[in-house]
Amino acid sequence: MYQALKERVLKANLKLPEYGLVTFTWGNVSEIDRDKGIIAIKPSGVEYSQMTVDDIVIVDLDGKQVEGHLNPSSDTQTHIELYKAFHSIGGIVHTHSRHATVWAQAGLDIPALGTTHADYFYGDIPCTRQLSAAEIAHDYEKNTGLVLIEEFTKRNLDAAAIPGAVVSGHAPFSWGKDAFDAVHNAVVLEEVSAMAIATRSLNLGVKVQEELLDKHYLRKHGKDAYYGQKS
Amino acid sequence: MYQALKERVLKANLKLPEYGLVTFTWGNVSEIDRDKGIIAIKPSGVEYSQMTVDDIVIVDLDGKQVEGHLNPSSDTQTHIELYKAFHSIGGIVHTHSRHATVWAQAGLDIPALGTTHADYFYGDIPCTRQLSAAEIAHDYEKNTGLVLIEEFTKRNLDAAAIPGAVVSGHAPFSWGKDAFDAVHNAVVLEEVSAMAIATRSLNLGVKVQEELLDKHYLRKHGKDAYYGQKS
Amino acid sequence: MYQALKERVLKANLKLPEYGLVTFTWGNVSEIDRDKGIIAIKPSGVEYSQMTVDDIVIVDLDGKQVEGHLNPSSDTQTHIELYKAFHSIGGIVHTHSRHATVWAQAGLDIPALGTTHADYFYGDIPCTRQLSAAEIAHDYEKNTGLVLIEEFTKRNLDAAAIPGAVVSGHAPFSWGKDAFDAVHNAVVLEEVSAMAIATRSLNLGVKVQEELLDKHYLRKHGKDAYYGQKS
Amino acid sequence: MYQALKERVLKANLKLPEYGLVTFTWGNVSEIDRDKGIIAIKPSGVEYSQMTVDDIVIVDLDGKQVEGHLNPSSDTQTHIELYKAFHSIGGIVHTHSRHATVWAQAGLDIPALGTTHADYFYGDIPCTRQLSAAEIAHDYEKNTGLVLIEEFTKRNLDAAAIPGAVVSGHAPFSWGKDAFDAVHNAVVLEEVSAMAIATRSLNLGVKVQEELLDKHYLRKHGKDAYYGQKS
Repeated sequence: MYQALKERVLKANLKLPEYGLVTFTWGNVSEIDRDKGIIAIKPSGVEYSQMTVDDIVIVDLDGKQVEGHLNPSSDTQTHIELYKAFHSIGGIVHTHSRHATVWAQAGLDIPALGTTHADYFYGDIPCTRQLSAAEIAHDYEKNTGLVLIEEFTKRNLDAAAIPGAVVSGHAPFSWGKDAFDAVHNAVVLEEVSAMAIATRSLNLGVKVQEELLDKHYLRKHGKDAYYGQKS
Repeated sequence: MYQALKERVLKANLKLPEYGLVTFTWGNVSEIDRDKGIIAIKPSGVEYSQMTVDDIVIVDLDGKQVEGHLNPSSDTQTHIELYKAFHSIGGIVHTHSRHATVWAQAGLDIPALGTTHADYFYGDIPCTRQLSAAEIAHDYEKNTGLVLIEEFTKRNLDAAAIPGAVVSGHAPFSWGKDAFDAVHNAVVLEEVSAMAIATRSLNLGVKVQEELLDKHYLRKHGKDAYYGQKS
Repeated sequence: MYQALKERVLKANLKLPEYGLVTFTWGNVSEIDRDKGIIAIKPSGVEYSQMTVDDIVIVDLDGKQVEGHLNPSSDTQTHIELYKAFHSIGGIVHTHSRHATVWAQAGLDIPALGTTHADYFYGDIPCTRQLSAAEIAHDYEKNTGLVLIEEFTKRNLDAAAIPGAVVSGHAPFSWGKDAFDAVHNAVVLEEVSAMAIATRSLNLGVKVQEELLDKHYLRKHGKDAYYGQKS
Repeated sequence: MYQALKERVLKANLKLPEYGLVTFTWGNVSEIDRDKGIIAIKPSGVEYSQMTVDDIVIVDLDGKQVEGHLNPSSDTQTHIELYKAFHSIGGIVHTHSRHATVWAQAGLDIPALGTTHADYFYGDIPCTRQLSAAEIAHDYEKNTGLVLIEEFTKRNLDAAAIPGAVVSGHAPFSWGKDAFDAVHNAVVLEEVSAMAIATRSLNLGVKVQEELLDKHYLRKHGKDAYYGQKS
């Protein structure tokens, strides 16, 4: 019944090792079918090289397992909260990619420093606040989602315009219109994270010009976008 | 009519992923036929792995599309301005290669620190000034070309002797006698950028000796050059 | 007689170059059979690409060679001391992997800075004290093991919960329930070492929250672990 | 007549791209036949992927070309001076490998910081003084050799115990008992250079213990060496 969706989610998951974003099983991709109210997601702790389409797990928005013989990713509750709060998104990726994780560990936003960043992320990429001891002790994975959402609400950010964030002390999450778009944004997030570390080592206070940020984001994503081919 | 040129430009574009200079479609190569007054350039936003010779776009020096079913690179106007100002060059490359982009984001010239640099670039590799809000708002890609040219004029630099530069807050451009030479210089620009970041972390104030810069540049490119084979 | 064990140890050794953890022959893996009181270990100074199962050496816990036509790894005495002191472990890896070795050379613990670390190492990864001149002059490899054990004893650490350490001025050792698990932990040790170097360059004083360290370590390794599949 | 030597030198040259030590043609390997008084060396500016055994050039110790249809490496005079001064060596490598070149550009010795270094280099790896304007203007490549030799003489170093150095503002040279050993040492020089950059970023003043330097160098290279297999 969910065969096509599960095949897409398998393929998107396999792109993580292909792009060098994961060590071992440290990542997961999901995609939502909003009409059917279900999410397809990677099983927990299974090697990418061994994963088949039958291993992909289907859960509903209450986290109830609908199909699949394996446990879903331990991060499933985080994905569910993000899908419930960010209505424009269709796919989510979580990894521990090296340079994005460095910013998470440093507890710092990934600053917008140039057009590479601006082509995909319309401003700094937020780092969440730390979770409280209580938030860690109970419903940790759900609270990881909630603290991400809180950051977007507090700063009045649009999840479609800033398609990713890092959780303090943890690692990055990214999203997009579907699973493949979310993986694409995970690659960008890792690349701009690496560039930003080295840029700050050369010039600590630098920021991208606001006008350049606007220009590059809007020429690709604005209503008058002119980058790429007309679809 | 432009088949041979388009094949060269396709091949040169495919060298960008081969040398690890691009993520996704973040780069483009063009070559000019000065006799015919036309430029062959990569289409906008097309994956390297899918690109065929028929996708390469031909434009004239007014930016008018002469051949091709796809939109040319969004950076076409930058290429055109550079070809119009730098008469000695035949090919241009734009990438967001990681370490060169770091210098662009830092808003700093890539300093000549050793013979690796001096073998190809006869002095510091300039970082342009920032574009003004007006230059970004109107004719942005054309103005990106103009600000590169302004930097060479202001500093009295020869584009043949400094075959590349970085645009502040953006990324590198390089050029050469043809498309392949421009790609070659893009590889060098990335490598010397990486070396310079680490060198400055060890020894902040260091510069290459002027005599060593002269020696290495001129033994390869001067009138009495003796590096390589007689052609 | 030890054929199956030797095949496992060969395979585990070949994973070191596969994961990019070794240059030339700079690493070795061993596994113990506690019932038989013997250890299978890589021969000294043999290239991975040439190694066969017959090259794997069997020694007993006094270091006496039981089987094999080649000298065992020069680090064999270190492995033996670790097996004798850490009863829960079944496999040991030694490498000079780049980023873990950097922490060893700096003489510093690898600080727990995030969940990537906490998923495998329940706290900072210790750097030993320097060996004394006498410890280096006599029984150096044995003393390397003893100084590792001393660090765990002094700090009251459980070798099962902190499956690795770095020896001051030298390089990392890791271990696990068998040879493959020890290799797995060597990969993690290298990755968290790389992340920690860059994290400290962005934010010198940062540490992971204690609650997050507990949560991630225990959801994978505690008695109520829920990460992965039920085995 | 020199076929076997030329085949060895071709093979050793091809190891440079295999080990990731060269970009384009930025490196060369030679080997000397001291009985015949000749050196086999890479031709200047020829791509590794196109090089055949017939391209390898034979020169005598006066730099006179004895065999070969191509110009020898522009660095040939440097190799000749090193062979004349360092009687124990049989092979020489020059590259612009990234991290070793960084130390050359910084004008700093590569400090001995751990056992990885001590296993091959018995102390700091010297950076030469800068060449004078006159030394650069006339017989530059010969003077590059002389300034390397001067550094070893001045510091009373044994070229067999410190099989490499970096030339200020330029790049590394390494050597060994033959061409393959010289390539091996070039790999080590690059690796310890990378480790040393990161180590100094964590702990600026650190040095390896003298006793540990002795132990590791001598257990591999001393008269009572016990590392590896008896040959």
